[in-house]
Amino acid sequence: MHPNLKSKVMSAQEAAALINNGEVIGVSGFTGAGYPKVVPAELAKRGEALRAQGQEFGISLYTGASIGDECDGVLARAGIMKMRLPYQSHTDVRNSINKGTTEYIDMHLSHSARLIRMGFVPKPTVAIVDACEVTPDGKIYLTGNGGNTPTYLLTAERIIIELNTHYGDTLIGSHDIFIPELKGTVPIHFAGDRIGKDYVQIDPAKIVAIVETNLPDSLKAFAAPDDDSNAIAAYILEFLAHERKKGRLPADVPYQSGVGNVANAVLATMAKDPTQAPVALYTEVIQDSVFDILEADKLIIASGASVSYTLDGQEKYKANAYTKGWKNKFILRPQEISNNAEVIRRLGVISMNTALEADIFGHVNSTHVNGSRIMNGIGGSGDFARNCLLGFFMTPSIAKGGKISAIVPMVSHTDHTEHDTMIFVSEQGLADLRGLAPIKRARLIIEKCAHPSYRPLLQEYLDYGLKHSALHAPHTLSKAFDFHKRLMETGSMMG
Amino acid sequence: MHPNLKSKVMSAQEAAALINNGEVIGVSGFTGAGYPKVVPAELAKRGEALRAQGQEFGISLYTGASIGDECDGVLARAGIMKMRLPYQSHTDVRNSINKGTTEYIDMHLSHSARLIRMGFVPKPTVAIVDACEVTPDGKIYLTGNGGNTPTYLLTAERIIIELNTHYGDTLIGSHDIFIPELKGTVPIHFAGDRIGKDYVQIDPAKIVAIVETNLPDSLKAFAAPDDDSNAIAAYILEFLAHERKKGRLPADVPYQSGVGNVANAVLATMAKDPTQAPVALYTEVIQDSVFDILEADKLIIASGASVSYTLDGQEKYKANAYTKGWKNKFILRPQEISNNAEVIRRLGVISMNTALEADIFGHVNSTHVNGSRIMNGIGGSGDFARNCLLGFFMTPSIAKGGKISAIVPMVSHTDHTEHDTMIFVSEQGLADLRGLAPIKRARLIIEKCAHPSYRPLLQEYLDYGLKHSALHAPHTLSKAFDFHKRLMETGSMMG
Repeated sequence: MHPNLKSKVMSAQEAAALINNGEVIGVSGFTGAGYPKVVPAELAKRGEALRAQGQEFGISLYTGASIGDECDGVLARAGIMKMRLPYQSHTDVRNSINKGTTEYIDMHLSHSARLIRMGFVPKPTVAIVDACEVTPDGKIYLTGNGGNTPTYLLTAERIIIELNTHYGDTLIGSHDIFIPELKGTVPIHFAGDRIGKDYVQIDPAKIVAIVETNLPDSLKAFAAPDDDSNAIAAYILEFLAHERKKGRLPADVPYQSGVGNVANAVLATMAKDPTQAPVALYTEVIQDSVFDILEADKLIIASGASVSYTLDGQEKYKANAYTKGWKNKFILRPQEISNNAEVIRRLGVISMNTALEADIFGHVNSTHVNGSRIMNGIGGSGDFARNCLLGFFMTPSIAKGGKISAIVPMVSHTDHTEHDTMIFVSEQGLADLRGLAPIKRARLIIEKCAHPSYRPLLQEYLDYGLKHSALHAPHTLSKAFDFHKRLMETGSMMG
Repeated sequence: MHPNLKSKVMSAQEAAALINNGEVIGVSGFTGAGYPKVVPAELAKRGEALRAQGQEFGISLYTGASIGDECDGVLARAGIMKMRLPYQSHTDVRNSINKGTTEYIDMHLSHSARLIRMGFVPKPTVAIVDACEVTPDGKIYLTGNGGNTPTYLLTAERIIIELNTHYGDTLIGSHDIFIPELKGTVPIHFAGDRIGKDYVQIDPAKIVAIVETNLPDSLKAFAAPDDDSNAIAAYILEFLAHERKKGRLPADVPYQSGVGNVANAVLATMAKDPTQAPVALYTEVIQDSVFDILEADKLIIASGASVSYTLDGQEKYKANAYTKGWKNKFILRPQEISNNAEVIRRLGVISMNTALEADIFGHVNSTHVNGSRIMNGIGGSGDFARNCLLGFFMTPSIAKGGKISAIVPMVSHTDHTEHDTMIFVSEQGLADLRGLAPIKRARLIIEKCAHPSYRPLLQEYLDYGLKHSALHAPHTLSKAFDFHKRLMETGSMMG
């Protein structure tokens, strides 16, 4: 740290004391990478103490996407998180939302920064940002995510920096910070294009505290891909090979893969396949699975909003950043750029995302259980599904030992409409819905993706509609949610 | 016509005889403009005659969007339309779809040409195209629409031209034909940018027939805007003025307005307002209402997929095309460009579209009655709503004398999700949903947009959910479609 900044150094507790009731806090952090790790815990304590004294204390929390327990968890458990956007996946936050303590605005990740800059949700009053470096003239070098951090730094009145030495300088230079205008172009023509600066320039007078840390992102390893994930990955790769053979897929389009096991299984399988050409990722979240591709010498570039590595992954990256030149293989962007409609369309991204449930006519629910209870949020799935060249929605056909079918007559909440979905994949098979009318889609989804134990019930629903409803998309509104009703009443969609 | 083409001239009946059972026909035409007007009637007769003899006869019909009775109506009534895409609004076609005779693929208008070129629906075997001029070296000058016509001309094996003198040469030069690659940029940076050619270049050997006509597009005049339309228009213009004052709206963003009365009322009011600055339209359908803006000297440019003028409007345009220079004020584009995600986002379009029904949490149904019965189709509403800078969904709060509420607890079909809708407007008022969590949205929509006679029922639904459901988006699946069920059982959502 530059000596001129020493005067702003203080403890996490002192920094938290600068935050008052009612503040809107914009934090760095995207899918568990680069969120603040010490000030929030002190803020939670402060809030709890003040509330124990009978004072009101609540804050709004804006992030990039999901963040670690050290921020989301502590603030939710303290009962002081009054509002939250644009994405979360923490059990305690989810519970707080569903019991009505926390108000949650679930947004397309690419939309959130613009809405904030336009002032349609209140601008943050304070930003708390995990950073590798800060200079006296106000250059902030971010850690493992672009997220919404630049917008929070630029719009907040006061800034608290958690100056984190964990990544050393291995992420300095990885960022490409570009803030789009309300209108105008985002001039990325290749996944690896750089169009901005590698730091965020702020007014240094806004920095009110610097708290020194040396803490990793506390991301746990995913379980190894199971049989279902491997089966889904195999169907996808087989289909891509088929499309390429048919001449319907340019060789050089980049990939986006959602978070989790299936995405990891796809990349792992690609890495192992000797016939696989090198790939570029224009994605949202870069996970450990990228290392397989990198070590197989098949990674052209990985562009994303975050490097969401596990603890092992972080050490691996740091060890190889300079010695093997891995630093040059990654670009971190603000999420409004990693998920930008214009760029995704232009590059022809192949997109893979997870569905919570899908219905027989091709609609996808990514967010709500039984129509009301939020799980995580739509995240970037809509940004990619709506604008990609080729899009997959993936899900195991059943959950909870068969008590839940991922394929239902009608989704209880729609996040992706029939007009935007292309390919459904479960461990049972793959359904290419492009160019099919609703009834044909229904037959194909039941045959290819539904679990055999649910096929008769789904077929029965379709057959009833074919007899009693208009024959474009023969729904029966009085029976459309019978699967969900049985689940709520008996604990199983089977009844 | 050039003498070298004379050998291909024949009657409509002779041309129709070239079309066989099972053919896929791609026709010109978008929102009632520039569709073929004489060959389809002969084809319908041929189909009926063959079927009367016990032979099988059916065709698939691809268009740009909705087209006139002379094509959609005659083919549907003849019972030979087996498949239809990507949009229709004709009673006979709709009935044919809902009784299962015609298979219908309802697509985002911007997506259809690409899906066809990629081969995910069969390519047309024959194109029938309304044209102003054709040259011996295969330059086709289109009439009043860009639509999907270039793609049909380029992918069909055989081409039938209806050479139509109605517009004379007043539309020659108006077109800007650009076919985007699977990936790559659409370099429009201003609504008036020209990036292509003013004709479609084909292989002249593919022309199998030229049929001479002199027929207008048979578009009827809309009824004059009623009180509801004027009220909705007034709310929108008041809101835009407010946004501009707040500095949240750049002055030079273009407008898209859907088809019909409200759109006309908005443009008519703009034209009359002395404080209104000149506007550019980057829209889908250019209607007669543009003349008001043009005559008030407030039109910078109108870019669209069609000039869908009424009979009077067509005469007016032709009379003024050269004498008043109106020709230079219009650009006609393929619908994949007029509705292009990348361009709409880049230009910052202000978008106004009609909702069939909307629910209290912000989802919009544009297409289906009671979940099953198709009305028209999603058209371009999703292309614009998803990518615009500011988007309105407009609907009168009730229909059929109050028997139907446009605001319902849960839409029976989702075309636009809560993540993509911004502003709802009815004749009752305007609800700005940006940055609001679901429960706040519900309260605002009930208060501002629902008809007073339905507010208690909607409030009751919300209150019940607030007591019994998870508190993110408190739906009650067993009651979510009670409005629709009552409508189906009693003829009124009121019961």
